[in-house]
Amino acid sequence: MTTIDTTNAADPTYTTTQVVRIRNGTRTSVADKLAMEEPLEIRLGYTDARRGRIHKSIAITMRTPGDDIALALGFLFAESIITSAGEVTSIDAGTDNVLRIELREDIKVDSLRLERHFYTTSSCGVCGKASLETLSLTGFPVLLNNSFSIHASALMRMSDMLYSHQVLFNLTGGNHATAVFNQHGEIELVKEDIGRHNAMDKLTGTLLQQGRIPMNNCGILISGRASFEMLQKALAASCPMLLAVGAPSSLAVELAQEFNITLVGFLGDAGFNIYHGADRILS
Amino acid sequence: MTTIDTTNAADPTYTTTQVVRIRNGTRTSVADKLAMEEPLEIRLGYTDARRGRIHKSIAITMRTPGDDIALALGFLFAESIITSAGEVTSIDAGTDNVLRIELREDIKVDSLRLERHFYTTSSCGVCGKASLETLSLTGFPVLLNNSFSIHASALMRMSDMLYSHQVLFNLTGGNHATAVFNQHGEIELVKEDIGRHNAMDKLTGTLLQQGRIPMNNCGILISGRASFEMLQKALAASCPMLLAVGAPSSLAVELAQEFNITLVGFLGDAGFNIYHGADRILS
Repeated sequence: MTTIDTTNAADPTYTTTQVVRIRNGTRTSVADKLAMEEPLEIRLGYTDARRGRIHKSIAITMRTPGDDIALALGFLFAESIITSAGEVTSIDAGTDNVLRIELREDIKVDSLRLERHFYTTSSCGVCGKASLETLSLTGFPVLLNNSFSIHASALMRMSDMLYSHQVLFNLTGGNHATAVFNQHGEIELVKEDIGRHNAMDKLTGTLLQQGRIPMNNCGILISGRASFEMLQKALAASCPMLLAVGAPSSLAVELAQEFNITLVGFLGDAGFNIYHGADRILS
Repeated sequence: MTTIDTTNAADPTYTTTQVVRIRNGTRTSVADKLAMEEPLEIRLGYTDARRGRIHKSIAITMRTPGDDIALALGFLFAESIITSAGEVTSIDAGTDNVLRIELREDIKVDSLRLERHFYTTSSCGVCGKASLETLSLTGFPVLLNNSFSIHASALMRMSDMLYSHQVLFNLTGGNHATAVFNQHGEIELVKEDIGRHNAMDKLTGTLLQQGRIPMNNCGILISGRASFEMLQKALAASCPMLLAVGAPSSLAVELAQEFNITLVGFLGDAGFNIYHGADRILS
């Protein structure tokens, strides 16, 4: 099994993994760099007008490590919680993906407003390593024995095929697409949305309505990148294979390994990279 | 002022707007289609083991309208709130971007777990029309008199210039970038992240630390698409000009119009589209 080298401590923004690269009919093992994706929890210490000093987790975002303090300041500023950097008395970035921020005592924050406004951006609501364990414990199946397979030559036709089905994207240039494909490489269902997680929810929600979950003899193809969130949603649907036209993140690859989901990235008409589960792709 | 035609009731997935297109040195007014972006609030009726029947707003997501029911089902399923479509007794999609779902009485949901897990995906936490009013009322400045301007020829060099600064993207193919540029078209600061909203927060957070907000004589360039969320963050920083290599959404264009932010999409070396504020771009 491929294993991610997470010892790249010198630069926490990327990591290196071995992938199976299929190009012009040949299969080689090469090193590939992955954008790091890890959860950051932002905890805020603030003074509530009625309830006094409060410490509270206000957001979890899946981010590339580095510049965490700037990220948190920018986030608080965009949400109108702070109006200047001077309203922050301390920031403890820690080493546990938890960032603790203390606001000045005289800055009053309305807890109700915080609750109303704080929805995290692009977050799955679960945390890195802990989340992998949590998913595993909450009964998500390990797909070790799923016998779905498909020929590499069929995969190479699919990015063009998806594009021809992207009605909205072809009109606007602004939509993501998700699709279900079968073992013959035929596209059976396509959903589009401005958010890739929404496009995925529309797809799995439709499969649910059709009684097609757990997925059987089919996989999911996405027009963009494969993040942790996309893998999580594919896993929930018991999807054995996820093909992405874009790049996968570090956490997506970890999840693919953990639950034995075949994960393909950079899918194009000349080839693709297999990040895990190459045995389901026939030469 | 350009105004979006939102009367495209036959198909709620896109809308048409007039843009100024700059291509090979000529400036023309053409129609352009935008991916619709609107908030969807998901309200859940469920039975809590201790507290009985509860109705609660559990998520707001910025989505392209259409397939809302499938979207909500897929979301609840991915979050392990439902395990089959049969656990839902009714879904009222309404016409107000609020979707009401009732779960079967015998399905018990743990409110604490809901709260712990429900972070919305890619949401800004504010709502469409209401949010535009809210922003306007909460003191975000209308940038009518910001005199920042730049030559069209300088813009056409900037997507290549950004690309050369995208260190992580060039390694991984999986990161978004945001940058600050000045009136000469020079890039002054670049941030990268797996999430475009994070890359934006890292940028504005750094500007905040440097005492450079409100932004003066500079604009923001982003590698991806311009969504409502990106405009909202640019607005918070009093940014007069946002350039996107990708497409803008309908709501992004509305926000640009409302607050007079110059918004450019599809920025390339041969030209670009101006969605609002063409007077700040000199020929």
